[in-house]
Amino acid sequence: MKAGSVPNAVSNVTRRAFVSTGAVAILSAHLGRTEGGQTQSDPLPSWNDGPAKAAVFAFVRDATDKSSPKYVEPADRIATFDQDGTLWTEHPLYGQAAFALARVGEMASSHPEWKQKEPFKSVLAGDREAMSKFTEADWLQIVAVTHAGMSTETFQGLVKDWLARAKAPRFDRPYTDLVYQPMLEVMRHLRANGFRTYIVTGGGQEFVRVYSERVYGVPPEQVVGSSIMTTYDNTGSKPVLMREPKPFFIDDGPGKAIGINLFIGKRPQAAFGNSGSADFKSGDAQMLEWTQAGDGARLMMLVLHDDAMREYSYGPAAGLPDTHVGTFSNELLLEATKNAWIVISMKNDWKRIFAFD
Amino acid sequence: MKAGSVPNAVSNVTRRAFVSTGAVAILSAHLGRTEGGQTQSDPLPSWNDGPAKAAVFAFVRDATDKSSPKYVEPADRIATFDQDGTLWTEHPLYGQAAFALARVGEMASSHPEWKQKEPFKSVLAGDREAMSKFTEADWLQIVAVTHAGMSTETFQGLVKDWLARAKAPRFDRPYTDLVYQPMLEVMRHLRANGFRTYIVTGGGQEFVRVYSERVYGVPPEQVVGSSIMTTYDNTGSKPVLMREPKPFFIDDGPGKAIGINLFIGKRPQAAFGNSGSADFKSGDAQMLEWTQAGDGARLMMLVLHDDAMREYSYGPAAGLPDTHVGTFSNELLLEATKNAWIVISMKNDWKRIFAFD
Repeated sequence: MKAGSVPNAVSNVTRRAFVSTGAVAILSAHLGRTEGGQTQSDPLPSWNDGPAKAAVFAFVRDATDKSSPKYVEPADRIATFDQDGTLWTEHPLYGQAAFALARVGEMASSHPEWKQKEPFKSVLAGDREAMSKFTEADWLQIVAVTHAGMSTETFQGLVKDWLARAKAPRFDRPYTDLVYQPMLEVMRHLRANGFRTYIVTGGGQEFVRVYSERVYGVPPEQVVGSSIMTTYDNTGSKPVLMREPKPFFIDDGPGKAIGINLFIGKRPQAAFGNSGSADFKSGDAQMLEWTQAGDGARLMMLVLHDDAMREYSYGPAAGLPDTHVGTFSNELLLEATKNAWIVISMKNDWKRIFAFD
Repeated sequence: MKAGSVPNAVSNVTRRAFVSTGAVAILSAHLGRTEGGQTQSDPLPSWNDGPAKAAVFAFVRDATDKSSPKYVEPADRIATFDQDGTLWTEHPLYGQAAFALARVGEMASSHPEWKQKEPFKSVLAGDREAMSKFTEADWLQIVAVTHAGMSTETFQGLVKDWLARAKAPRFDRPYTDLVYQPMLEVMRHLRANGFRTYIVTGGGQEFVRVYSERVYGVPPEQVVGSSIMTTYDNTGSKPVLMREPKPFFIDDGPGKAIGINLFIGKRPQAAFGNSGSADFKSGDAQMLEWTQAGDGARLMMLVLHDDAMREYSYGPAAGLPDTHVGTFSNELLLEATKNAWIVISMKNDWKRIFAFD
């Protein structure tokens, strides 16, 4: 199957959702609804009309209509969003990985031994082939030197500085420009209807919190992510939290359901992801499964990267090889079909992808 | 020093705060203030006039007055409250410990071996002397059988059932009746002024979340506490999170500053506690220290249990032996003096202690 096309399985999934929710009628009804005599403008202008857009409207209508059997109390209106590949671009490599590699470069002059020592040697040589084969242990070494051994405040400062300088490949723009406009609209639409929008990311919690408010309108306390150990140090003039080179919590795969319970303590009504490895050890499958297992209105959606023209196209579900960055496996596609999760085709469902489009 | 009296050190601390904040003037100004032509009613009616009450008003005024150099943006208005001994009674033993001991009794018929096996033997024999000497390892064994080996939903159900049945010693009332009315008023007053009120407890996060909304008006996502490991299990008809007999996070002592950063990601403007062991390994000292180290209006308060008549009086700061339950050590009292943290005398500052008084 060639890049950019939507596989049949996806068409089936979306067609099924379309029919089962009576989405066309709902969409029309929503757009025609008047409040206070004014025609309501479309809160999702970057979405093409279709089953995915209609599913969002149907969900919000059910959740907020007191006469609906699926009504959701405002206190329980929680929606969770994966970040990489769901809210912003994750190819050719995760933003946070780009930050880590850049830091290795910046720190190299103080570490002459890195020129001879893997994994740093490959990073400094810009050897993409070698880097693509880095093991988890390699990445842990890179995280240890770039993300730990400093206070939380120092780390936040480094991330902020990097974000202001760094340019993402292909687009030559700041990473925070590569945010999906249609997803920002969904987040805003949900918040306008009483939902709290959480980011639930496999990426670093402290990393994402640096820009979550500015970029997504999500405050730090609504960012759940992976984290390393911190220790409290009050031996200096003011207390600091020191970041230690030891993993603490991995918010990925089953960890996303665990993290949601740990940090939020409530089951979401809606969950948005884009990835799931074939063994489901990483990605968003469990977050969607956990979300679906509750009562009331429910919405589970997966972003499919099938638009090589406007962004990237990758992974088995798009009929392409697994890049191991944001894998949408065929196994996840089967789960989506089985559970009637809505697959969003970036190519077909999104009128534009970025705000700058 | 006899039970129930306020030691001189506390008088000094409160007197100092009283003078340094010009508290009398602030208090009078606050109570006389009119808005929309109406005299504002006292939001803290269970507090006697004095430095502690005045400090709360001064803090809220500074934090919310846009012309104040200490003004705090609404997004940053966060207040954290320890639970045991700060929001509800912790003597003669923590509510959650009472739950665990009751569970041991309920489970004993399925565990005949417990009659011969410590620590269960002492619990079943009601041997308070032996129980008061339980080590951390003993308590971990009790937690393992009473708090783990079940799903989060099953655990929540057990806690809910127990709370509906159990009666606290001395008062013969449900544990959730033993909540301090003056502290509820402070929480409400802060929320009315745009603050989000978090519970930051050494106790179990999942335990407190069962009743936090009903009792304190604090939703589950604003409860930070200690936790055990959970694992995701989707082998049954619906996915569950299983509670494992392994500690995950200890939200106590330095862990309170770590937990605040981990779960909230912002530094609080106000923090309320009541305990600190002599070595500061447990209690609220670091939470208050971490809170104080930020900018803008700040409020750090410690509840002193010096009212044996109406509740309990205990610990070195009240001139009594250390019970090892909610220790207010002399070392903490020195920190309070040094840092101008306000000590609340339950006896002198609180007009009433419980809503049923």
